[in-house]
Amino acid sequence: MPTRVVEPYLFVIFGASGDLVSLKLLPAVYRLSQQGSIRGQHRILGAARTEYSDESFREFAIKALREDGIDDADAAEWCKETLYYQTMEGSEQQHYQALADRIETMEREANLPGNRVFYLAVPPKVFPTITNGLGQVGLNKGKGWTRLVVEKPFGWDLPSAEDLNEQIHQYFSEDQIYRIDHFLGKETVQNLLVFRFANAIFESLWNREHVRDIQITVSEGIGIGSRAGYYDNVGAMRDMVQNHLTQILTLLAMEVPISYEAESIRHEKIKVLRSVAAIQEEDVVLGQYAAGVVNGEEVPSYLDEVGKESQTETYIALRLAIDNWRWQGVPFYLRTGKRMPKRLTQITVNFRRPPVCLFESLECTDLGNDSLVMTLQPDEGFSLYFDVKQPGEPLRLKNIPLHFRYQEAFGPLPDAYVTLLLDILTGDQTLFVHADEAEASWRLYTPLLTMGLPIHKYAAGSRGPAAADKLLEREGNSWRKIE
Amino acid sequence: MPTRVVEPYLFVIFGASGDLVSLKLLPAVYRLSQQGSIRGQHRILGAARTEYSDESFREFAIKALREDGIDDADAAEWCKETLYYQTMEGSEQQHYQALADRIETMEREANLPGNRVFYLAVPPKVFPTITNGLGQVGLNKGKGWTRLVVEKPFGWDLPSAEDLNEQIHQYFSEDQIYRIDHFLGKETVQNLLVFRFANAIFESLWNREHVRDIQITVSEGIGIGSRAGYYDNVGAMRDMVQNHLTQILTLLAMEVPISYEAESIRHEKIKVLRSVAAIQEEDVVLGQYAAGVVNGEEVPSYLDEVGKESQTETYIALRLAIDNWRWQGVPFYLRTGKRMPKRLTQITVNFRRPPVCLFESLECTDLGNDSLVMTLQPDEGFSLYFDVKQPGEPLRLKNIPLHFRYQEAFGPLPDAYVTLLLDILTGDQTLFVHADEAEASWRLYTPLLTMGLPIHKYAAGSRGPAAADKLLEREGNSWRKIE
Repeated sequence: MPTRVVEPYLFVIFGASGDLVSLKLLPAVYRLSQQGSIRGQHRILGAARTEYSDESFREFAIKALREDGIDDADAAEWCKETLYYQTMEGSEQQHYQALADRIETMEREANLPGNRVFYLAVPPKVFPTITNGLGQVGLNKGKGWTRLVVEKPFGWDLPSAEDLNEQIHQYFSEDQIYRIDHFLGKETVQNLLVFRFANAIFESLWNREHVRDIQITVSEGIGIGSRAGYYDNVGAMRDMVQNHLTQILTLLAMEVPISYEAESIRHEKIKVLRSVAAIQEEDVVLGQYAAGVVNGEEVPSYLDEVGKESQTETYIALRLAIDNWRWQGVPFYLRTGKRMPKRLTQITVNFRRPPVCLFESLECTDLGNDSLVMTLQPDEGFSLYFDVKQPGEPLRLKNIPLHFRYQEAFGPLPDAYVTLLLDILTGDQTLFVHADEAEASWRLYTPLLTMGLPIHKYAAGSRGPAAADKLLEREGNSWRKIE
Repeated sequence: MPTRVVEPYLFVIFGASGDLVSLKLLPAVYRLSQQGSIRGQHRILGAARTEYSDESFREFAIKALREDGIDDADAAEWCKETLYYQTMEGSEQQHYQALADRIETMEREANLPGNRVFYLAVPPKVFPTITNGLGQVGLNKGKGWTRLVVEKPFGWDLPSAEDLNEQIHQYFSEDQIYRIDHFLGKETVQNLLVFRFANAIFESLWNREHVRDIQITVSEGIGIGSRAGYYDNVGAMRDMVQNHLTQILTLLAMEVPISYEAESIRHEKIKVLRSVAAIQEEDVVLGQYAAGVVNGEEVPSYLDEVGKESQTETYIALRLAIDNWRWQGVPFYLRTGKRMPKRLTQITVNFRRPPVCLFESLECTDLGNDSLVMTLQPDEGFSLYFDVKQPGEPLRLKNIPLHFRYQEAFGPLPDAYVTLLLDILTGDQTLFVHADEAEASWRLYTPLLTMGLPIHKYAAGSRGPAAADKLLEREGNSWRKIE
């Protein structure tokens, strides 16, 4: 396959002085610029309220790169040649005109053809201000292509997401918009589709005839830390479930698309979301961590961390039902939480047991689960668990894993942002969230936001409230251990 | 599951001074006697033409155990207490009467209840003489159970196998007869059934819809060595294919039995053999090794080893078709040979490729095989090969194995003879070959013995004649590499 060609471009970052930019975006753009395949002409224009000069923004960038382990003359040279900065107030029309002028100057000086990325690394409430500002000075279209990148959260509930889409669509068409869910940039998440559609054996097991239940776990060891102010208004449902877990769900459950292209894949993902049955109160368990011990260290409760009374959930477990021909009757269990035993993102596909236990000397319950366990982070890999005969007498079975670890085969994996940036620059929307997807997801979860569900306390460092275990036990299932 | 109980027994070995007895049988009986579960009362009576005394037979046994790594006071004590010897000429009636008297004396002295195993570690032409001799003095039935163990080769072709069965059945009923194929005692072969019937995921892939082809390879690095005289009358078809490879074939291809018991399993194995289509000339490749290099060492040709002109095959490759609902259209490729690159017994199940290649940037031929590779010896284990996405750009697939090794999980595996002896002593015929199986197998291969097929030369150390590759290539398949 030929390597993708990136045309010369200008990269405009709103919120350029923020954490996301220093921690993720700048290192990713730099790494990408160093890949032989796209060592094209490019310029980066940071824009934010912070009063940086070109020079001080470059210093900010050099520091950011250094903290990411990039510390050489090449990087400093790149910053000097590539990075520029424009101080601005988002609300003022004249600032957008100044931005437009600056862009034109930069493009002329660097002889760029007018391809532009506008990256919105800002809080969502500012999105419409910026897209309107850009539109009003004609920056929504240029001589080359113009693409808009939007970071999560994409909306607050269904009405706000619809409203946001409508506002952005005023100046930008859907094929210009790249809604980032960085989970989709992870190699292991991308590989879900390759795994399913390059390997006939698994795809033929991937349905209600062979699958008993599917579990998606995104467990975090950390608490809310410095994000208390933000997080307390958001909670686990908005922060994790509506986007990351639901994206994984759709990739797992979707039908085979007609091709491996953005439009076909998004179409199938939306179909999944529209097939999910309305979630009932009894299928949701919310939790909030109390004080406890994580990794041998005593940690405070959520309430102590936010410093006030709060009904915000830091844990959520859900049972979803997908009412289509492939999945009817197969429960999908989702859970995510903070202050759980460790950081782990894992998918477990539990297959059905044999219809008959042939081994008369054994109880059928002695048969282990056939399970496919895909670990997305950390220690990315696959394990396929099945039963073998234990050597010797008497006949006993042992559930053992066939396993594979990415690190062993491929070494360190590329950062999700590098992958996603390259997709943006080459115009591949496959790994980005369509407006309809975002809305379909909010349609599913928005009713839960106002149900006034009880919040179960769980000890920090535990696997969550006991009520979440009952969610599975009532139909004879159980969560895979977090280990 | 309760451990199986072995009742006190007398073990009579015909051909007691031979290699099989010293190399396999005596160490196995001793090991078994040391297992807590069956530390019952037992006696062993060796019988052969060699003029041993009890004492010198015990010395022979102590030496045999020592060469197997068993060298302690316990073993010497066991030999002294347990082993006895009776010199005999197989053809003389009075010798059998003397044997009967000796058995009665031993049982009385040791207070044994009359359970007896007669183990025929002798060339097959002597089988009828012995079974008739035993029958004529009433040793075919006793106060307890009486079991007859027969070593391969079981017949020479279909008529001789039928004749042999008929002769043995004159005095022994089929449920008394244990035809040993030591391949069936290997843990990994036994595990074939557990693997298939304890794991619903594989059993549901185990058919013509999902499997493209199945390969059974029994590759040996050694030549004929000191067995030249015997081997030149036999060849690979009789020595390996009719028994070992065919047993593996039936276990792989059989339907789910109604229970995990001898009768049900043998019934299904026989059904497989009866479903195999008559083998055509173009589906067989015979070979004989020329001089060559194995493991860096120059080795002579087969003809140099036997020291005469010979048309005996040391290699055979076969394409079998099983004309039943499960397997119609799936080729089964069998091959075995001496002086191949290394010792390896391996089953490869190649699954079908996806019906559509979704990844437009790749050729469908870039998709690897999904394959299940079961290694029976050495380094017993499973590997499941499938395609994953290689990290980074551009989209490329890599065929990687999920793997499992018995040694890592369980340590060294028990010897096949220990397993099979315990089955004999507890009356479990599951892992032994029924008369109908032996005959059905001979029925399949006997026509090939008189076809006058050409013998292709292959260099010692190579993977066999090139003609064997063409057998697969003509339908777009290829042998798995021997590695």
